[in-house]
Amino acid sequence: MRPILVFQTDFTYLEGAVAAMYGVVKSVDRDIEIIDATHEIPQYDTWSASFRLDQYMRFWPKGQIFVSVVDPGVGTKRRACVALTNDGYYVVTPDNGTLTHIKAHVGIKEVREIDESINRLKRDDNKAVSIFHGRDLFGYCAARLASGIITYEEVGPSYPVDEIVTHKINKAVLKEDGIEGIFEINDPNFGNLWTNISLDDFSKYFTHGDKIAVEIIHDDKVVFDKVLPYYPSFGMAEDHSVMIYNNELNNIALAEVVGNLCKSYGLSYGPEYKVVFKKVG
Amino acid sequence: MRPILVFQTDFTYLEGAVAAMYGVVKSVDRDIEIIDATHEIPQYDTWSASFRLDQYMRFWPKGQIFVSVVDPGVGTKRRACVALTNDGYYVVTPDNGTLTHIKAHVGIKEVREIDESINRLKRDDNKAVSIFHGRDLFGYCAARLASGIITYEEVGPSYPVDEIVTHKINKAVLKEDGIEGIFEINDPNFGNLWTNISLDDFSKYFTHGDKIAVEIIHDDKVVFDKVLPYYPSFGMAEDHSVMIYNNELNNIALAEVVGNLCKSYGLSYGPEYKVVFKKVG
Amino acid sequence: MRPILVFQTDFTYLEGAVAAMYGVVKSVDRDIEIIDATHEIPQYDTWSASFRLDQYMRFWPKGQIFVSVVDPGVGTKRRACVALTNDGYYVVTPDNGTLTHIKAHVGIKEVREIDESINRLKRDDNKAVSIFHGRDLFGYCAARLASGIITYEEVGPSYPVDEIVTHKINKAVLKEDGIEGIFEINDPNFGNLWTNISLDDFSKYFTHGDKIAVEIIHDDKVVFDKVLPYYPSFGMAEDHSVMIYNNELNNIALAEVVGNLCKSYGLSYGPEYKVVFKKVG
Repeated sequence: MRPILVFQTDFTYLEGAVAAMYGVVKSVDRDIEIIDATHEIPQYDTWSASFRLDQYMRFWPKGQIFVSVVDPGVGTKRRACVALTNDGYYVVTPDNGTLTHIKAHVGIKEVREIDESINRLKRDDNKAVSIFHGRDLFGYCAARLASGIITYEEVGPSYPVDEIVTHKINKAVLKEDGIEGIFEINDPNFGNLWTNISLDDFSKYFTHGDKIAVEIIHDDKVVFDKVLPYYPSFGMAEDHSVMIYNNELNNIALAEVVGNLCKSYGLSYGPEYKVVFKKVG
Repeated sequence: MRPILVFQTDFTYLEGAVAAMYGVVKSVDRDIEIIDATHEIPQYDTWSASFRLDQYMRFWPKGQIFVSVVDPGVGTKRRACVALTNDGYYVVTPDNGTLTHIKAHVGIKEVREIDESINRLKRDDNKAVSIFHGRDLFGYCAARLASGIITYEEVGPSYPVDEIVTHKINKAVLKEDGIEGIFEINDPNFGNLWTNISLDDFSKYFTHGDKIAVEIIHDDKVVFDKVLPYYPSFGMAEDHSVMIYNNELNNIALAEVVGNLCKSYGLSYGPEYKVVFKKVG
Repeated sequence: MRPILVFQTDFTYLEGAVAAMYGVVKSVDRDIEIIDATHEIPQYDTWSASFRLDQYMRFWPKGQIFVSVVDPGVGTKRRACVALTNDGYYVVTPDNGTLTHIKAHVGIKEVREIDESINRLKRDDNKAVSIFHGRDLFGYCAARLASGIITYEEVGPSYPVDEIVTHKINKAVLKEDGIEGIFEINDPNFGNLWTNISLDDFSKYFTHGDKIAVEIIHDDKVVFDKVLPYYPSFGMAEDHSVMIYNNELNNIALAEVVGNLCKSYGLSYGPEYKVVFKKVG
């Protein structure tokens, strides 16, 4: 059975780019199943691309092929690659930081640079196009791999896994009186903020029902300072109150119940947002 | 043949939640077909979730399974259920008002509470997660039902249909000199407003081509007062004029032609918006 | 093998219209594969609908069926049609300008008006609906054609190809000292502006690496006047600088690198935006 192709990009559906890319896939092999992971990764944001892959890949059947095209360096020397993860998935992507979280948390078994002489779409009417590798390279190569036209080895030459481009991942700091981390990312829909602190580490200090002192520091300035409850889920707190919970990846997160924490408090994410949890009293 | 899984949520595609949920479905059974109804139900809005199901379910083949996850009470005591409708569809949803319109208009034949000991995803890495039932419970259970791993009876124990949580549905009032209703919902794309007045009732008073006095009252204050034409479709009126028509569900609605009535006139929907139609002259 | 149905509309996913339309398709034939091209064509914009079809259709396997529903004249006398293109695709659409680019660039071999007495959905509960031809006419007819229930001839009577409604396409003007065109459309996601000047024509004057004087005139007023570089792709220029490139359709375009040209400079597209490229010095 052919692997499914699962796509994530920053293309949106505002114009015809996704439809052209999917047409190429179906022209390679009419039977390939295509599923959207999302086409709304923040523009040019390879950190978010990396985080989202790590968020959902593990829930798919082994052997699936994920295509991630957030590619600010399209047409430059950055490598186009297909990585094989330690847990048995393929990721087709520019090698530009998108493999950061998967490499750190699961590990990359092997990575190959796409051989453009074989695995790039050739058409008279697009031979001069240098700006749409989603359509001409990543989608096309992924479809050939999914359909069995090429083996993984035929993607192109392998290169050392430690040459994969990665972003820095910040680790939580466990102190005597509490735990300190950053906001790694947000949930841009509900406005929740997700820290880099694992439930396991957090549980060394706190338990459900605790009231916890939470300080958020942005560029060395305290921008939020409250005592918040820690609950298993949102329904336990008052509407529009702020609470602590463990998110779907078992990291610690903050939410405004039936609200939007980011908007209500003018908060965002990134290494410049430090968050400190301490016991009260 | 396996039923299709048709999904509606308020998750959006802004992050990886939909992709994780669909991965779980495909891990249960690679052959299940997934179709998006929408992931843009207004956040936490179980009324809209209920209305939309009623809008589109009837157009699908019998036996299909609809999964609706608008779930402000996730992790609380609200029931997770699978309803079987009188017209032969399944709806997998939190029992939180989402079944309101289907229950009133079609009827629920049977409803079963999902047995989490059997029909909830068990993974080491998400055993502590209480906030994502779309992935771990509704999507997983629906996939098991669609694939035939469980029968409908094996979803869990049935409970009385009259215990299903519902919102109040307002009925139109037929008076001597006209008809009075509310705006039940809008078309958030084109800005049209849809009343709770059926075409059948409206036709007792008015016919296409009539000019009709329309008054909109918001919290007892008249906010719109015009004589409007009643036409079968938009092309019959001038661009940017406001007109009355019967919508795709054969309820009476108002539109600004090639415009956006809600934006242009600052209108919205809900029981606090009363609308009165009277004969002119 | 059944053709895939590829849909583009201006419906968005904000309400249940797409789900109702897809339900009708699946009720005609459970095995038809549905793919979204986009549901975010700008509202009522038949020019954009036409342009987007031309952008992606050619990348699909021959014989596919495209359904385009941007239909400001729904319910009026405009024809509902199925066109067969010279390169072997079907387009199911209101005949309202949506076939403009395909007709000009590829050519229409034959066009047939949909016979509503046969190819329109009949249901008791929607017999009075005049405003949703996406569901009741275009989606339904396309599904019947895809499933082989009707042949192309059974869509309805053919009519002369030169009766197809089209918009005016502006051609670039090649002058002695440079080349003049308009912005045909934008990339609404990344904010790039796409001209109607082909790479072939542009290459008669300019080559990669050139610095080129670019003037943008809006309604006879110069709104942009800069010397810009011409590069194969975005990575060659500084972030936030403006550059010239050839786009994925091999037309000349302008971009702000890792930015949004339209937003940064208050620019848009249409025949009222003239753009002139001249050699420097």
